[in-house]
Amino acid sequence: MDKATYMDSNDRRSFLLSSAGLTAAGWAALSAELTAAETSSSAPLVEPGDTILFQGDSITDAGRNRDQTTLVNQQSAFGSGYAWLAASQMLVTQPEDNLKCYNRGISGNKVYQLAERWQTDCLDIKPNLLSILIGVNDIWHKLSGQYDGTVEIYEKDYHALLSRTKAALPQVKLVVCEPFVLRCGAVDESWFPEFDKYRAAARRVADKAGARFVPFQTIFDRAVEYAPPEYWAQDGVHPSPQGASLMAYSWLQTVGVGAGVG
Amino acid sequence: MDKATYMDSNDRRSFLLSSAGLTAAGWAALSAELTAAETSSSAPLVEPGDTILFQGDSITDAGRNRDQTTLVNQQSAFGSGYAWLAASQMLVTQPEDNLKCYNRGISGNKVYQLAERWQTDCLDIKPNLLSILIGVNDIWHKLSGQYDGTVEIYEKDYHALLSRTKAALPQVKLVVCEPFVLRCGAVDESWFPEFDKYRAAARRVADKAGARFVPFQTIFDRAVEYAPPEYWAQDGVHPSPQGASLMAYSWLQTVGVGAGVG
Repeated sequence: MDKATYMDSNDRRSFLLSSAGLTAAGWAALSAELTAAETSSSAPLVEPGDTILFQGDSITDAGRNRDQTTLVNQQSAFGSGYAWLAASQMLVTQPEDNLKCYNRGISGNKVYQLAERWQTDCLDIKPNLLSILIGVNDIWHKLSGQYDGTVEIYEKDYHALLSRTKAALPQVKLVVCEPFVLRCGAVDESWFPEFDKYRAAARRVADKAGARFVPFQTIFDRAVEYAPPEYWAQDGVHPSPQGASLMAYSWLQTVGVGAGVG
Repeated sequence: MDKATYMDSNDRRSFLLSSAGLTAAGWAALSAELTAAETSSSAPLVEPGDTILFQGDSITDAGRNRDQTTLVNQQSAFGSGYAWLAASQMLVTQPEDNLKCYNRGISGNKVYQLAERWQTDCLDIKPNLLSILIGVNDIWHKLSGQYDGTVEIYEKDYHALLSRTKAALPQVKLVVCEPFVLRCGAVDESWFPEFDKYRAAARRVADKAGARFVPFQTIFDRAVEYAPPEYWAQDGVHPSPQGASLMAYSWLQTVGVGAGVG
């Protein structure tokens, strides 16, 4: 349903309800109930005029051109990952919403590295909607001996990052994306069950912060029924274009972007 | 809104409306109005248990493996184009719907070539939902001197194909996709304004058949504001993975697939 139809529908509904002989109290109760049913967990998080920032590691970075990092809404500044696909699909199907989309993912980042650059690469941008996907390097670099973090450090640092963000930007809408892997390439049994603890920590962080959670691992666990894991992410970590497309669609469904094309 | 929520919402609404002291006639009028507002052009066309068939040319074909053509819901049988992205995104986010998705696009096809193989490659499959993208070869092969068709032939053949389909499958839900080009690669000024006539013909065919229309040209005309035409389709005709992702999202929005992930 596009926005125009939705507003027309509400206008018509108000008119009908108020002219149907309901008492004021009856009208209020009915109206609240109808509204609640329509603004459940998939209510649109994106609103007209929003500044949307994608943050994360290489999966978000996805080959973006660092020389163009301040450009808004341009593919060259965005790379070609899920963040760009989600952003461009919103921009193209909701041109009237005047969204401003940025990507500041940096390859190799772990949570503490987001924190180090957070003033410049998040707070100064003043996003209305902030989406973060972080965690795979927190475990991967540990497994490869380049980092000595733990899941407890990941959760504590991630929670602190979101608390700091909410203190600086009290109205910010938060999206926390679930870290995910495909069981192929660089991802072997040594990742488990430790990796599942990072996923669970991300969900706790999301819940505490009131963030919407994008269940990427659930999505990819289902996707391997239809194509081998390597099809979605050759090395188990970095999605193929088709994997990125699936992520973008899941992200858009989770943030409840529902305007029709036209 | 997922289906469970939608049903709950309707149940609650019926209860509330009927207990709110409306007359039977008032209830019926209000109920019809609310339902109409919610089942406008983006009401879900896809329903649980549907058999969905994608038909078309190379853009639909997209490298599918002919040896696996009868396999249902598998990437190898589907290629990696918009059809697969749309199908897999439905399969992954609506697993409870038990959809059966097929792709029978064949590279190089024009409308009359769909007609030649329609019994085997459409009617025998008995789709509940049929999506067709055809037309670019009808003009391209004319321009390159390999074919002597006209836009009138395209429209007449396309209309006949849909009429034949509806006669054989009276309940079939139809989706007609707009032929599109990007202005780059093989697509030069010699394509215009002739190409626009093919697009207009496709829309007329869709309207006459009561098909839902996916406005791919509108989508790509907007997309070039954010990345060069070559980014979406190197040769102007065959979409990149990112172009295919944008098409899949537009297709899903047009057919009104709106279930949330979870």
